[in-house]
Amino acid sequence: MNALDRYRTLLDDAVAQWRPETGPATLYEPVRYILDLGGKRLRPVLVLLAAELNGGRAEAALGPALGIEWFHNFSLLHDDIMDQAALRRGKPTVHVRYSPSAAILSGDVMLVDAFRFLSQVRPELLPELLQRFSRTAVEVCEGQQMDMDFEKRQDVRVEEYLEMIRLKTAVLLGCSLYVGGRVGGSTSDQAEALYAFGEHLGLAFQLRDDLLDSYGDPDKFGKTVGGDILQDKKTYLFIHALERASTQDRQQLLNNPNKGSQKVEAVLALYARTGARPATEAAIQDHHQQALAALNRAALPPTGEHALRDLAEYLLVRES
Amino acid sequence: MNALDRYRTLLDDAVAQWRPETGPATLYEPVRYILDLGGKRLRPVLVLLAAELNGGRAEAALGPALGIEWFHNFSLLHDDIMDQAALRRGKPTVHVRYSPSAAILSGDVMLVDAFRFLSQVRPELLPELLQRFSRTAVEVCEGQQMDMDFEKRQDVRVEEYLEMIRLKTAVLLGCSLYVGGRVGGSTSDQAEALYAFGEHLGLAFQLRDDLLDSYGDPDKFGKTVGGDILQDKKTYLFIHALERASTQDRQQLLNNPNKGSQKVEAVLALYARTGARPATEAAIQDHHQQALAALNRAALPPTGEHALRDLAEYLLVRES
Repeated sequence: MNALDRYRTLLDDAVAQWRPETGPATLYEPVRYILDLGGKRLRPVLVLLAAELNGGRAEAALGPALGIEWFHNFSLLHDDIMDQAALRRGKPTVHVRYSPSAAILSGDVMLVDAFRFLSQVRPELLPELLQRFSRTAVEVCEGQQMDMDFEKRQDVRVEEYLEMIRLKTAVLLGCSLYVGGRVGGSTSDQAEALYAFGEHLGLAFQLRDDLLDSYGDPDKFGKTVGGDILQDKKTYLFIHALERASTQDRQQLLNNPNKGSQKVEAVLALYARTGARPATEAAIQDHHQQALAALNRAALPPTGEHALRDLAEYLLVRES
Repeated sequence: MNALDRYRTLLDDAVAQWRPETGPATLYEPVRYILDLGGKRLRPVLVLLAAELNGGRAEAALGPALGIEWFHNFSLLHDDIMDQAALRRGKPTVHVRYSPSAAILSGDVMLVDAFRFLSQVRPELLPELLQRFSRTAVEVCEGQQMDMDFEKRQDVRVEEYLEMIRLKTAVLLGCSLYVGGRVGGSTSDQAEALYAFGEHLGLAFQLRDDLLDSYGDPDKFGKTVGGDILQDKKTYLFIHALERASTQDRQQLLNNPNKGSQKVEAVLALYARTGARPATEAAIQDHHQQALAALNRAALPPTGEHALRDLAEYLLVRES
């Protein structure tokens, strides 16, 4: 993915050069820490990529791209407290390394700074982009709340799960492309189509994540295969199986007496009986196709269309 | 304060009528709960008041006024977690009544919605007001961080304390007047003067709060007089006394062996020896005067100037 490397380098350089203007070091140390954990920087890469689809320059969209990256990191800081996650990318999470208060307040300042970065656009675009971004930000909060609510429920339906991952993950990918597109000269209609492309891509991406966790190649997948099963995570596979399982299988899913690899095997057998894997693969295909249909609607110049087609391919065939 | 009652009613009605557009009830119940705790709604009242200083209408500034109120309540939700406060206005705080996760996430959505409300201004004003508001929001976070940092330090200087309360409390009052002023037709210069007025008023107001906690009339002061002393809170009085105390008195301040009213009496005696009370009164006077000088610079029509003069009087002579 050489085309994307340039965007990634631009972003990594900008993040490395970022310094807080003033303020207590204790507030900004956790900000530096989470930014330095790195990652693919997928969302801001999408902003820069979208800015060039119609002949614009990525550099002009660097402010909003950082805004999206700051927002994403804010959500990681706060979600990790709520989910009581101890590790992120193999390093202690901020609430563990520093304190819950540090993770809350440094997250808050990142959220505010996300708006400041996002505002670095031509004034005539500001009302529209601000509205799109803040609606997306609210939706991401709503998705996180639904995710937490689902943990306490045993009757979550597949449609509810899809709506949750749409809000928690997919809309921010859509928003990234929308913002970048508009900064780079896309029309409103093109940007709406890019948004839909990102949204369906995000859904397919998250579903593939669920799939890889249970069926990935252990040699290529970065985490333990079966991790979701061991943690009783309500994934697409789990919820699909739960909807279609016999009464006995349902009980086994909800109160599995096994541990370790035995538990993984038992649940995978149950997934096999209910057809959870092909159903998930079909849902991924469905959203991949819907993404490509949206891409068609965007009516981009050929180079732009190829770039996004390649991106979808890259994100949906990865194995880690 | 009849002139302010109309603003207060406008705000209370708007808050009562507010409903989330969509999203999980679990996310918005804590929002409703904290909004219904009420309060003086001082900050949004300042927005509406400032909007009318130059002949504008308060109603035109209702969006940004709610933005400031939402922001203030976001900060209460998160601060109460960090400060481990169990009660607010005599009712359980959100993190106690619901959960820390609820207080974090509902606070997050209030912060985003603060930006959405604030954006309800004429597009040509948006870049300027967004910049002012987001800078202020960052400063409030920095003030909260300094406040937490100070708890672990025994060498906080009076100047640092003033900077902390300026950031944590005063800048938001300044920002409220700035935003309302600009929406209501104040020039940039007038709005800057209003900002300075609000900032000095906020400093005087917070210092008076410190003073009343130790020297208020028990019949008029809403809380227990001496509460700050019993909680070892680092107030202006405390820090002033610590700077000037003899080595022996310093030890007594930092490790007071007494409890209850004995402790309050011992610390008050120490405040008396170091002249903490008159020093605090002088600082209040100083900032009151600086506020009035800024008001002069604003060169408002007489009715507007009187309204703000009365407001300062009202806020700085209250006893609860």
